Amino acid sequence: MKVFIIGTGLIGGSFANDLRSAFSDVEIYGVDEKEHHLEEALVEGFIDHKAELSDLKVADVVYLAIPVDASIKVLPKVLDIVSDDCLVTDAGSTKEQLCNSIADHPKRRNYLAGHPIAGTEFSGPSAAIHGLFKYKTNIICEVEKTAFQLQEKALEIFHALGMRIRYMDPASHDRHIAYVSHLSHISSFMLGKTVLEKEKNERDIFDLAGSGFASTVRLAKSSPEMWTPIFRQNKKNVMETLDEYISNLKHFRELMEADKFDEVYSEMDKTNHIKDVLNGITKTENLKIQENGK
Amino acid sequence: MKVFIIGTGLIGGSFANDLRSAFSDVEIYGVDEKEHHLEEALVEGFIDHKAELSDLKVADVVYLAIPVDASIKVLPKVLDIVSDDCLVTDAGSTKEQLCNSIADHPKRRNYLAGHPIAGTEFSGPSAAIHGLFKYKTNIICEVEKTAFQLQEKALEIFHALGMRIRYMDPASHDRHIAYVSHLSHISSFMLGKTVLEKEKNERDIFDLAGSGFASTVRLAKSSPEMWTPIFRQNKKNVMETLDEYISNLKHFRELMEADKFDEVYSEMDKTNHIKDVLNGITKTENLKIQENGK
Repeated sequence: MKVFIIGTGLIGGSFANDLRSAFSDVEIYGVDEKEHHLEEALVEGFIDHKAELSDLKVADVVYLAIPVDASIKVLPKVLDIVSDDCLVTDAGSTKEQLCNSIADHPKRRNYLAGHPIAGTEFSGPSAAIHGLFKYKTNIICEVEKTAFQLQEKALEIFHALGMRIRYMDPASHDRHIAYVSHLSHISSFMLGKTVLEKEKNERDIFDLAGSGFASTVRLAKSSPEMWTPIFRQNKKNVMETLDEYISNLKHFRELMEADKFDEVYSEMDKTNHIKDVLNGITKTENLKIQENGK
Repeated sequence: MKVFIIGTGLIGGSFANDLRSAFSDVEIYGVDEKEHHLEEALVEGFIDHKAELSDLKVADVVYLAIPVDASIKVLPKVLDIVSDDCLVTDAGSTKEQLCNSIADHPKRRNYLAGHPIAGTEFSGPSAAIHGLFKYKTNIICEVEKTAFQLQEKALEIFHALGMRIRYMDPASHDRHIAYVSHLSHISSFMLGKTVLEKEKNERDIFDLAGSGFASTVRLAKSSPEMWTPIFRQNKKNVMETLDEYISNLKHFRELMEADKFDEVYSEMDKTNHIKDVLNGITKTENLKIQENGK
């Protein structure tokens, strides 16, 4: 099986790694605009060969793991080149614009729109992790538009990597993911900004920061190169989440100003049941272990 | 050494645990309004005896680990009862009001104001952790107002538990901690609220949430009972941090609305160096290991 990884960073590198562990007959080609990423990926052993887009005509599988603005430009070109039996899938965090962009492509049936809920705040080939996708959800959009045989091929790969599958339409995906992922990143970046601005001349003040602060600003280490196009493509949804978030913060501030601390208590108390939701995630992960155990 | 722990929750329980490991001659008494906490602490073996405030006259050390509004009421009573040689210290997250409240107490010299930057989002005796304070910073305020001999006793205990000491005046403590701790909690609670409100009828949507979301909302599991009085006591500082945070979020939103995505990129890029700051925390923790190694 000839697999082409376009974008040999954290996601592409981890995908290549796990694919090699799961399938004995896999030959992995790397395509990346950044020559140093390809060199790193070769040294790390993620890929067997460097390649270019024109080589894709021999591909059995193409995995697109590049920023979402680049995907919009590259995906149609990929579809132009690949054979009729080639599966093309991706890892982009926004789905509506990408799906729309190739809606009328003659090879639409070769493409399966995916978004694995996996990653870290780091990037590049050196950030790749073994088992990154294990027990993680891969959201598949517009599955009905992909050739049935290629859906099967994709599921075989995703299951081998330990992923769980959820089906969703692209608009719902982008709306929900704005809440549970994109907004978290902005809240974290702006928290980091607020604290850095205040404490810029007193660096050692960060001695005062504990694990709570570190946890809350962790996502502020994320790559602006990856996140700027996500916010651009999902602008409408992200702005809506931001409006609601800002409004909730202002309300909390007003309660404090008016000394309504019973209501401040109640605000926190009502949100406390996020515990159950987060425990739910853990439970689901345990279920995934059973489901995927094979 | 007779040690009285007032408040046998996460902090008090962990303190008792580690004290027992560090000192062979320690006898631990628990004082708690919640009878079931005392029972749990006895069963877990944190404390040797249940006690009441009136028993404090035999205490060598008193550790106050209760919500900050309760501390203001309890600390003067404690000082009224203890002997001249007894060290009284605490773990409260706000320091100015508490220090002011006992400024003129005849036994002011028995009290050392402390704030260990340690804890988790959980609470109660069952949340106590062995080694919770190891390599953590304990902020000491108004050290000059504590009897020298009792400062020495306190440092011996804090060092035995593996803590690193930072000295700071109460007003600076409250101002800085508003940024690096209190604001994180509000940002996390309001993020949790925003997402829960949106997704309340679609619980399974949390399948879409990854480790990034879990990390960012972790603090929204914290106890309202502990945090409401913190926000009340540190109202002025916390409101200032909230104003700056809301203003940064609004600016980000405006940049998105105006399609100024170069500036959106730049906002994130400038905050990215929080990496170095957080790495600094890790480095400091490594240093602490060396410093405290004994």
